[in-house]
Formats: sequence, structure tokens, C-alpha cells
Amino acid sequence: MAAVRIRAGALEAFCIEAMRRAGLSRRDAELSARVFVTTDTWGTFTHGTRQIRGLMKNARRGRLVAGAQERIVAEGPSWAIVDARDGMPPAISCRAVETAVAKARKTGMAYVGVRRSSHYGAAGYYANLIAEHGMFGMSMCNVEPCMTVPGGKSRILGTNPIAYAAPTGTERTIMLDVATSAVAATKIFAAKNEGRPIPDTWLVDEAGVPTTDPTIFPEAGAQLPMAGHKGYGLAVFVEILTAVLTGSAMMSAVHSWVADDPEPSDQGHAFIAIDVSAIMPADEFHRRLGAMSAEIASAEMAPGQRIYLPGQMEWERREQALRDGIELPEDVLISLRGLAEDSGVDPADYGIDLG
Amino acid sequence: MAAVRIRAGALEAFCIEAMRRAGLSRRDAELSARVFVTTDTWGTFTHGTRQIRGLMKNARRGRLVAGAQERIVAEGPSWAIVDARDGMPPAISCRAVETAVAKARKTGMAYVGVRRSSHYGAAGYYANLIAEHGMFGMSMCNVEPCMTVPGGKSRILGTNPIAYAAPTGTERTIMLDVATSAVAATKIFAAKNEGRPIPDTWLVDEAGVPTTDPTIFPEAGAQLPMAGHKGYGLAVFVEILTAVLTGSAMMSAVHSWVADDPEPSDQGHAFIAIDVSAIMPADEFHRRLGAMSAEIASAEMAPGQRIYLPGQMEWERREQALRDGIELPEDVLISLRGLAEDSGVDPADYGIDLG
Repeated sequence: MAAVRIRAGALEAFCIEAMRRAGLSRRDAELSARVFVTTDTWGTFTHGTRQIRGLMKNARRGRLVAGAQERIVAEGPSWAIVDARDGMPPAISCRAVETAVAKARKTGMAYVGVRRSSHYGAAGYYANLIAEHGMFGMSMCNVEPCMTVPGGKSRILGTNPIAYAAPTGTERTIMLDVATSAVAATKIFAAKNEGRPIPDTWLVDEAGVPTTDPTIFPEAGAQLPMAGHKGYGLAVFVEILTAVLTGSAMMSAVHSWVADDPEPSDQGHAFIAIDVSAIMPADEFHRRLGAMSAEIASAEMAPGQRIYLPGQMEWERREQALRDGIELPEDVLISLRGLAEDSGVDPADYGIDLG
Repeated sequence: MAAVRIRAGALEAFCIEAMRRAGLSRRDAELSARVFVTTDTWGTFTHGTRQIRGLMKNARRGRLVAGAQERIVAEGPSWAIVDARDGMPPAISCRAVETAVAKARKTGMAYVGVRRSSHYGAAGYYANLIAEHGMFGMSMCNVEPCMTVPGGKSRILGTNPIAYAAPTGTERTIMLDVATSAVAATKIFAAKNEGRPIPDTWLVDEAGVPTTDPTIFPEAGAQLPMAGHKGYGLAVFVEILTAVLTGSAMMSAVHSWVADDPEPSDQGHAFIAIDVSAIMPADEFHRRLGAMSAEIASAEMAPGQRIYLPGQMEWERREQALRDGIELPEDVLISLRGLAEDSGVDPADYGIDLG
């Protein structure tokens, strides 16, 4: 079977129309489609257009309020708190980034927290959006509990991702987007589907004992943080900046956006922007960052291996996707076919064959 | 042999005088002694008073300039860059924190980068110092290369620590201080001394292959980052904020402060302060953070285990150390005896018996 390859522009246009049909404004649909399709071009398919169907289902049932306009509820020279009012998270997050960038342009840096939001896609997108403005960017989100902590056995904290991006003067920013869990749940599901055992650092069973058996999850068990107490501590870091400080729901009070649950998710986000061009000339920052990257890239490699800069895999995948079309995995195609059905938008009208 | 227990106040007074004899001002010696003795009370002995002898040796040979006055070389409303001019890092870092806090008091948040510094002790001390001012604090430092990256085999990045602390309204802040390497080098040395193999996630050999043999290190081999590409990416995050953006030495240009090397270290630090009381009433922040902590602490524990909040072990150790005296390990006692010898300060004059 030939792989299905889809042009990024066509996919974006299809997604915009599908989201419009669920009640999103043109502007919100455009911003959101850009978020999800860019994420697909990076190869981060778990957080790309695959997510749209679920978000639009939530919009249709009112868990997500398609027409909601977020509000800045408190602000100072270098910070703001945005109440998302259960609106469309990627669009609201893009505007929260604009607020952070505008404030950082005046003072040098800014923090913007968002409350009463939901799933915003890949944290890295917003860090990178800040870097596109020539600033150092961070992006974080809290998530409903699925991970235990050292000494515990139940689900206590979410996978709470941390992302950052640094501007290089080219599209290829230095960029990292990591969950604070040992691995993404999708890796556990993959092992389960293929009947493989997993390393004993990914999951504990109901008794809190590390297990190599992926079949118990997600009905039972809890994920483990990356690097033990380090990942646990960093997940708490994210919880503080995205939820404690924003007034958003904390830990078990967050409602999973994919669960069959009528309540809004009430997740929190945090964005930080540092205007590097206020601190040193942008050219000098790019030159110094380039020197750092060159030293890493030119280091001796282990036999048969290759060193990648943070974000380099994503940028290489994106360049190929923009050149040859995005090769979407089957689970994404299934989700997009469902989105077409739910919305009544025919992919063929956009020259798209979903297989 | 009865354990040697030393009163924190006496240890501080002894360290102040020993540092004064190496040319430090009273103020710098006082600030630095507070940093190192507090770190000992937390039980983080690798980064406590054990470090003073080496720093004072560097002061005597001019690698560290005891009388140097740091300068703010550039600043804006929410940021500053400090040139440490090879002065005493803990004292300069305490003052950099004061600058960050003063700026954050006006705008809500601030970044202060420090260049031309050296070993500043435990990153967590400064994050906690920010929290003592009622703010959310971060602290980072770059370090000479000792760690490889995925795909590499040589030493590319330092253990580049990240620390944060959040104010709780009590002395017991929520606090984390972690190296971005899998483990501290001291754990590898301990296994080497005891003839134990190490997990294959700590070290690679000269060929870049993970090894369980600790005896090759530090003559050969390279440490591994925590959680693979995640720790690597976070070490780069620290390198950018502490070195690329501050103008400090990057990666292999950093000179190890413990090496027999006449050059100054030229390490960089980064401090970030967020004034939570500008964003929400301090009481509300403490209440919300307390609710988060209570949910973690009350979670079901695995059999025979206990859940600790980030920083809780350190605060429990400190309370015991302030009550009963600090029980210093033998390697610290050896270092302090050397400091007494080098400086000509008699510990007995301070009521201290170094065993």
C-alpha cells in the first residue's frame, strides 16, 4: 500500500473548514489549524491534527465553548493572567504568546498564565512561536493525573510537559518539548499492541511496584516520572506555574479532555518570553548560539550513531513534509476521516485522499 | 567512633574567618559561609563547606579574585547582566538574586544572568533565597563538559543544574535542585570505591558504549544525561540561559574550578524571580500551593515507602542539624581540616572539633 501523503496547505484548509462547522470563528480555526498541521510536519503526530476531532466533539457538547472570548483578568508590566473561559485552547494560547511577547518587548521578559483552558496541543509549538518573534520561549501545561511519584502508587500528577525554544536567526530554532513522565503513554500502548514487555522504569502496577507488563494500562497502574525524583520535581514545577499561580484546576481537579465527562477540562498553561535582543544584539546571540550548536554537532559520535541538536529531527521532518507532503500514520487518518464525517466536510473538496 | 556533630553557627564563624584570611571582605565571607553551611544543614554535603578549601586555594593563586567587585554591565526593567569579574561566586550570586528580586518587585518578574563566575555551590540555595523574598525562584549554572549526549561519545556538556523554589509562607519552601546528568559524579565515585557495578544509564566508555564499570571514570568515559534526550535538551536550556545569553564561556571554554589550571573558570549563572504576590495575594498562593502539597502528601504510598515533597528531605535534615548539630561526613571533615591548615585558623577557637 502506497503511503498517503498530504500537502500541508490542503490539510490546513480542510481542518479550518471542519473547525468552522463546529462553531469556531475563522480566526480561531486558522490559528488552531496552523498549530496542529505544523505539529504534524514535525512528525509529532500524537499532538497534531489527530486531536481536532476530539476537541470538536467537546465543542459540540459544550465542554469547550467555541465562541468564547478569553479575557486578561489581571496584568502587570511583565505578566498577565488570561481566563480562557473554556474557549479553543490553541487559538487562545497563540494570543497569550502575543501578550507575553508584547510585554517582553517593553521590559525584557514576561510570564503569561492561562486558566480554564483545555488541551492546547504540543507545548513546543508555543515555545517556538515565541522564538519566531526573536525571543527565548518557554511553554508548559498541566494535565490530569496519570503518573505516580517516588514512594507512591496511585496517579498523582499529570505528564506536565515543558518546552523551550531559542531563536537562531533561521527557521530551525533550538527546540525541546518533553513530558516529565518517563515516556509518553503512546509508547506503552504501542508495546501493549505488539505484545512486547516494557522497561521497568515506565509504569508501576496497582501495588506501586514497577512492572514490565504494559497490558495493565490504562485500566490500572500509573506512569513513572522521568529520572525518578527529578521528573517528579519538574512536574511539580509545571503544576505551580500553570495551575497554582494561574488559579486553574490543580492535579485531580483537572478533567481529562478525552474522557467521557461533561465538565470543562480547566487546564492551565504558562508561557515565558525573554527578549534576547534587549540583552545583546540579536546577531551576537545567534552567533553565540550557533557556536554552541556547532560544538555539539561536531563532537565525536558513537559508532553508527548521530548527534541531533534539540529540534533538529523535527526541522528535518518538516522540511521533507513541506517538500513531499506529510505522511500521516493510520491512526491520524482514521481520526481525520472521523472529523470529515462529524463535520460533513469532504476532504476531496480540498484535494485530500485520506485513504 | 562517635559521629562528629558541629553547631551551624560555630561552623559559619570558622568558615568566615578562614575565608577572610584568603582576602575576602567580611560581607563576602559572611554571605558565602551562609550559603555553604545552609547547604550542609540540608545534607547536600557535596556542595557545602567541603567546597571552601578549593575556592580559597583558587583565591590564593588568583584564579578567583577575592577583592573583585562585580558590575551590572547591562540592564532593563526586567533583566540585568552581571560581570562577576572572577569574584567570589556565592556572594556575587546572593547579590544577583537581590537584583532579580528588586526588579521583579517592580515589574512582576526578572532574569539576571551572571558571567565570568566560578563554582557557586548548590543551585538550590539561590532559588530558595528568591523564595525567602516571597517569590518563585529559579537558579541555573553551566559547568565544564563531563557528559555526553545521545549519539555522542565524548564529554560535550556539563552537568548543568536546574533549581527552583516556591514560597509556602513557612521556612519549608517547595524546592528542587537537580543536575541534568543521570546522577552526580559522586555516585559513580562511591560505586568505584566500594567495588560495585553501576547501572548502564550513568556512564559511557571511551567508545561511547554504556558501561556498568565505574573504575574507568574520571580518567576515561563520559556521564550520561538524565532521561536521555530530555536531560540533554535541558542541559542545553541551561547552557543558553547561563552562557549564550550572558556572554560567559560556553561548554569546552569553561575551565573546571577544581582542575590544576591557572585560568579563571568563567562559568555563567542565571536567576529568575517571579513575584507571585503581584499576581495573586500571597495568602492565596500559599493556600493553593498548600492544597497541591497536601494532595501529594496524602496520596497512597507504595508498601514500605514514603512520599516526600520536593525539598522535604532537605528541610527535615536542616531542622535536625539545627537542633542536634550537623553530622559532617569524613570527606567534609578532611576538607575542613585542610582549610584550617591552609588558613591558619584554629577550629578549636570556635569550639569546633573536626575529629
